[in-house]
Amino acid sequence: MSTCIIGKGLPRVDAVPKVTGAAQYTVDLKMPGLLVGKILRSPHAHARIKSIDTSAAEQLKGVLAVITAKDVPDGLFSFYQWLADKNILCGETVRYIGDEVAAVAAVDDDTAEEAVSLIKVDYELLPAVFDVHAALEPGAPLVHDDKESNSTWSVERLFGDPDKALAECDFVVEGTYVTHAQAHTCLETSNCIAKWDEKDRLTIWTNAQAPHTQRQEVARILGIPRRNVRVINSYMGGGFGSKLVMDVKLPIASVLSRLTGRPVRIVNTRSEEFTTGKTRYPYTMSLKTGAMKDGRIVVRDLTVIGDAGAYHDKGPATINFSSMMFGTLYDVPNIRFQAQMVYTNKEMGTAFRGFGNPQLTFATESQLDELAHKMGIDPLDLRLRNSNCSMGTTSCGAEICGCAMTECMEAASEAIEWSQKKARPSDGTLRGVGLANMVHTGGGGRFYGYNSAEAFIKLSDEGTVTLITSALDMGQGSHTTMAQIAAEELGVSLSDINVLSHDTELTPYDLGSWGSRATFMDGNAVQAAARDARAALAEAAAEMLEADPADIVIEESKVWVKGSSEKHDLFEIVDHAVNAHGIPISGTGQFVDKLPEGYTIPTAFAKNIPCFSFGTQAVEVEVDPETGQVRVLRVVAAHETGTTINQTMSEGQIEGSIAQGIGFALMERLVRQEGKVQNDRFLDYKIPNIGDMPEIETILVESVGTKGPFGAKGIGEPGLVPTAPAIANAVFDAIGVRFHELPITRDMVLEALKETR
Amino acid sequence: MSTCIIGKGLPRVDAVPKVTGAAQYTVDLKMPGLLVGKILRSPHAHARIKSIDTSAAEQLKGVLAVITAKDVPDGLFSFYQWLADKNILCGETVRYIGDEVAAVAAVDDDTAEEAVSLIKVDYELLPAVFDVHAALEPGAPLVHDDKESNSTWSVERLFGDPDKALAECDFVVEGTYVTHAQAHTCLETSNCIAKWDEKDRLTIWTNAQAPHTQRQEVARILGIPRRNVRVINSYMGGGFGSKLVMDVKLPIASVLSRLTGRPVRIVNTRSEEFTTGKTRYPYTMSLKTGAMKDGRIVVRDLTVIGDAGAYHDKGPATINFSSMMFGTLYDVPNIRFQAQMVYTNKEMGTAFRGFGNPQLTFATESQLDELAHKMGIDPLDLRLRNSNCSMGTTSCGAEICGCAMTECMEAASEAIEWSQKKARPSDGTLRGVGLANMVHTGGGGRFYGYNSAEAFIKLSDEGTVTLITSALDMGQGSHTTMAQIAAEELGVSLSDINVLSHDTELTPYDLGSWGSRATFMDGNAVQAAARDARAALAEAAAEMLEADPADIVIEESKVWVKGSSEKHDLFEIVDHAVNAHGIPISGTGQFVDKLPEGYTIPTAFAKNIPCFSFGTQAVEVEVDPETGQVRVLRVVAAHETGTTINQTMSEGQIEGSIAQGIGFALMERLVRQEGKVQNDRFLDYKIPNIGDMPEIETILVESVGTKGPFGAKGIGEPGLVPTAPAIANAVFDAIGVRFHELPITRDMVLEALKETR
Repeated sequence: MSTCIIGKGLPRVDAVPKVTGAAQYTVDLKMPGLLVGKILRSPHAHARIKSIDTSAAEQLKGVLAVITAKDVPDGLFSFYQWLADKNILCGETVRYIGDEVAAVAAVDDDTAEEAVSLIKVDYELLPAVFDVHAALEPGAPLVHDDKESNSTWSVERLFGDPDKALAECDFVVEGTYVTHAQAHTCLETSNCIAKWDEKDRLTIWTNAQAPHTQRQEVARILGIPRRNVRVINSYMGGGFGSKLVMDVKLPIASVLSRLTGRPVRIVNTRSEEFTTGKTRYPYTMSLKTGAMKDGRIVVRDLTVIGDAGAYHDKGPATINFSSMMFGTLYDVPNIRFQAQMVYTNKEMGTAFRGFGNPQLTFATESQLDELAHKMGIDPLDLRLRNSNCSMGTTSCGAEICGCAMTECMEAASEAIEWSQKKARPSDGTLRGVGLANMVHTGGGGRFYGYNSAEAFIKLSDEGTVTLITSALDMGQGSHTTMAQIAAEELGVSLSDINVLSHDTELTPYDLGSWGSRATFMDGNAVQAAARDARAALAEAAAEMLEADPADIVIEESKVWVKGSSEKHDLFEIVDHAVNAHGIPISGTGQFVDKLPEGYTIPTAFAKNIPCFSFGTQAVEVEVDPETGQVRVLRVVAAHETGTTINQTMSEGQIEGSIAQGIGFALMERLVRQEGKVQNDRFLDYKIPNIGDMPEIETILVESVGTKGPFGAKGIGEPGLVPTAPAIANAVFDAIGVRFHELPITRDMVLEALKETR
Repeated sequence: MSTCIIGKGLPRVDAVPKVTGAAQYTVDLKMPGLLVGKILRSPHAHARIKSIDTSAAEQLKGVLAVITAKDVPDGLFSFYQWLADKNILCGETVRYIGDEVAAVAAVDDDTAEEAVSLIKVDYELLPAVFDVHAALEPGAPLVHDDKESNSTWSVERLFGDPDKALAECDFVVEGTYVTHAQAHTCLETSNCIAKWDEKDRLTIWTNAQAPHTQRQEVARILGIPRRNVRVINSYMGGGFGSKLVMDVKLPIASVLSRLTGRPVRIVNTRSEEFTTGKTRYPYTMSLKTGAMKDGRIVVRDLTVIGDAGAYHDKGPATINFSSMMFGTLYDVPNIRFQAQMVYTNKEMGTAFRGFGNPQLTFATESQLDELAHKMGIDPLDLRLRNSNCSMGTTSCGAEICGCAMTECMEAASEAIEWSQKKARPSDGTLRGVGLANMVHTGGGGRFYGYNSAEAFIKLSDEGTVTLITSALDMGQGSHTTMAQIAAEELGVSLSDINVLSHDTELTPYDLGSWGSRATFMDGNAVQAAARDARAALAEAAAEMLEADPADIVIEESKVWVKGSSEKHDLFEIVDHAVNAHGIPISGTGQFVDKLPEGYTIPTAFAKNIPCFSFGTQAVEVEVDPETGQVRVLRVVAAHETGTTINQTMSEGQIEGSIAQGIGFALMERLVRQEGKVQNDRFLDYKIPNIGDMPEIETILVESVGTKGPFGAKGIGEPGLVPTAPAIANAVFDAIGVRFHELPITRDMVLEALKETR
């Protein structure tokens, strides 16, 4: 393999437009007649709508449409239609503070806001429930009164005999771990423009992580053929999972546009983004881990209660995914995983970078340290003894076809100076080190029974390359990754690749960017397309140079016959082929990844995952005894990339993940009183800023055995997964206190320090 | 072959947006900061520029840039770079009234116009020449003083021994035929927007018949890499050849945009369109035809003097093409074709529907009637005796692989009631009938040694089809044709096809829409791509229906196994393939048409043409003895289509051509005084209106032997070619006067009637 481009820390292909401000986001788009849409939201956590009076709003000058539930298609929707539980607009019941009740379209922001304020809704308050445990009590208020209970979905997985193993093993630790609602905090809030054209087709400009499936969702909920819906993505200012599932503002804007005959744009305010933009699912996890004297972990038993919020959304999928990761990080022979999602009268959860895994790993990797402590052995040593590098199939069925877990642990512990730091005599400062392992999918999942991607390539008459891919760039840089893969395979330079994407009309059907799948799935399709185009190129060159196509070498935009010293510009070859002989040069590529033979969606479990990505983070913290603040001094992040496609971007993904992981561990939590979010702005909802960030050393561990493009795996999510438990373990090392709840706030630390003194 | 779609008169795919006004032409585009560009043009036919003072224009408020020759890249350009003879802006010499001298960019139309009027140019007048014969005189003023003469390009073709044949044959007729400058009169005038982006790439929105080659021309003249130029076509309001070659306003707008950092739009006024928008090349043709007693035409000898105007443009290519058609209509063993293009100080000519063939055919088919008259035989009979249906190679090398010439003559003469009309005793009215044959390319030409096209197809998850083709729709309907070909081949309905085109970044390299090539070339590529996608579809269906892919039938969006009565919706198959198995369905297709083995561009001559399209038009006219007006009462147009793809559109193309042919024959001519166009608006330059149009009967004659998609040939140009000679022949039949010059005006007819009385 030539290594001109793969692995290099090349600048992003969209760097210049983003830096200069030329990049157009949905809010930057201009079109004639564009109206402003605003949503009237419920001020109550649970209430019955007795009546709505829109007359004053309708009479306001500059208002073109006011809609309520009676104006939108009936029926319920959800990401999975068999779990449908949400209206476009609430007709009878509102279920959380922020639930959509009515919407207006007006000529400008002020008019739209005034119109929303003029809509009078008469509510009858209903008892609300905010806590999952209270929600499970008999007689608790039902969030959905057509359902028997607030328990919405449960998963149970059993391998081996956990009860027997727990009874027989030498050491058992148990504990309950709690995580809270974290917000995605994308710099670009959720938004869309909807517009019907003269052919009665609906075009939606939005910032969707999955334009093709959102197109399906919009069509389904509006009851129109999918063919009549086109979704076009603008540049995106972050997704992190929040833009995977169709937001209800898409059908609302579509109905407003339909009624007014004009395009309608709806944009979340920052407050709306915090209070209705969905969150990471809060988990309450009761976990037992049992081990033998030799350190072998033989049993794990976990019960999860997940807080769904008011509607399903991605809850069932999230706990499903948690169950797969639970059975994969270490090869534990006896496993029980029981989980349920529970409705509460709060903002709903959704997909969020890590997808149920950061919560889970906080519990499992915290408890592993507790086990080591109880057994009196070094937590690193305990992990090394259980390293999952068998390259076989775990008891839970996960097929570990490539794994650098041991290398990651060794690299991370060496770089943090584990032995010295653990042995360090106290100098009076409250410093400590901790580490945690992680596993995550490195290439999406076969959750539909398959996962697939397709790409097209055409060369211009000058050898520049148009690459049509569905790899969705939400800011993570997948356009750059795809361009690098195509450039490397074709033997051209990165600047020769133009990526066309972000339009369901143009790009092949694709599940979107989530689950760390773009590099693996779309990258494979891009590589196949480039290989196809390269063959056409070699054939053209062979004809011109009177050689065998197999002897043609193409590298760094030069073409030559193997063994010959005469190098031709690629331009010359393509110009000759296209302009002298009229031979167009193009390629197509597909990648289809299916469940193994004999497995179906319900039975596949961990076989859903085409490749796993392991990693280890080691952190050093210092606790301020006066303020209780935990300062993360240093993070060493050793992660498997398979093959690194772009070093700078892989490091960027990991560093960004760690920032979000530090927020999850120490700062971020939506605080509610009676269901009402109290911190709906960045001044109150604190995410790590530059001053909070530690020194980060990222170690990209290349490994083999992955079927990704050039052997690459996805790296978009893993960096977030082990950060919180590594910090919790380091805090324990520093002050001897074990925290079972995130975020570990200053108040909690001060309180704990008080108790230990 | 299923015949669900091919041949049907289906509505155009762009009918609704065009009818409702939703279609966006370049003048409809809006973008932030868009400036208005205007060009200062020479008021003199020939002059030296002594100085230019732009200071007053520069100081005008709202003017952002004023440019002259010193601000634009040096050097000359032309469609064929080896014929380069034109500056972007004239620095030293202006060569016709309208030549580009300076340009401005300003905030609005009024300011731009005022700025142009404030530019002071000091000219030194030079002697000018307007007539080709005067231009060839020794000592004539040189239009380009760096050249030795005004004769710019000559072609000579010789087959057999014309002198010997002329001496030995039984009948010879000779005459000189003259045609004048006809304007294209597109409803949308020439225009463009140029804009540089943050990556230093230039995007041009325009109405180009050949975006890919215009992109090459823009890059060449600006001295920038082709990769940095993108051409995007909007909807087009007609081309007819006028929008094939890059207009100089593209580099002018590009330079203005570069200087101002803002997008700049330049739009021809109607007057500019008439006076600088280029014309059909005027020809003066001295022709001899010789025949034997049995009617066999044995020799033809033609000398053409073409009027290039001030610059080359498509002149050389036009006379080259005339020479190919001259040797192809009938298989004449002895042929001499001598032609030259001559510079004059007038607006230049360019490509125009028929490309040198309407002029030529006016001469040859008029003279054939003169020959018949001299020999005392019926003109139809003479033509039938010489019908070129040998299906072999003519003396000039044209390979006639499919020909319905005799059928066309028979169909047209029967429909016009030829025998009755010719035999009709005079009832006092001056009525007459005439006919003429034609041949034209039915699929472009291999003028670069090749001709080729490529197309891509992808199916959505619902079975709708995205078709990426370079077939350029300038209003002739090629998007509809391409959609029909794809729909037929795939077995889906026309409304399932979405055509993506008109963007050099997106579409494969392609020579553009001209020479009746889109249906033949692009259509073949589209059919191949659809065939490829259909195979993928059949494979998916076979898997689902547990059958052999070869047994899968796909028709009218239904899929079934041969012999089975159970029909499935195509939707079901695709949904299953994509959503259950993740198998993307797509296809690519290429069509490469090369010169026959052993021929090169200079030697290929008529072998440049991949397929010929024959046709016959028969007309009936009535001459008003009081006014001299020739009224065309009826036209029967029998034309070969190979296979008709869309009956309504084929008829539309022929009817539109006939309108332009009637204009060419009877009305249209740019009238000049000392080089200045006198009729630069539609009130003065008369084209046929609805009242001028005759009853038209179009007979589409299907024929075999063509390698086009489903056997189709192009039909965009043929309908114009024989109209003028058929009318001239009918006028002779009506009043016994032979006109050798077009247009046949009322004054000319009155004068002739006076003489005959």
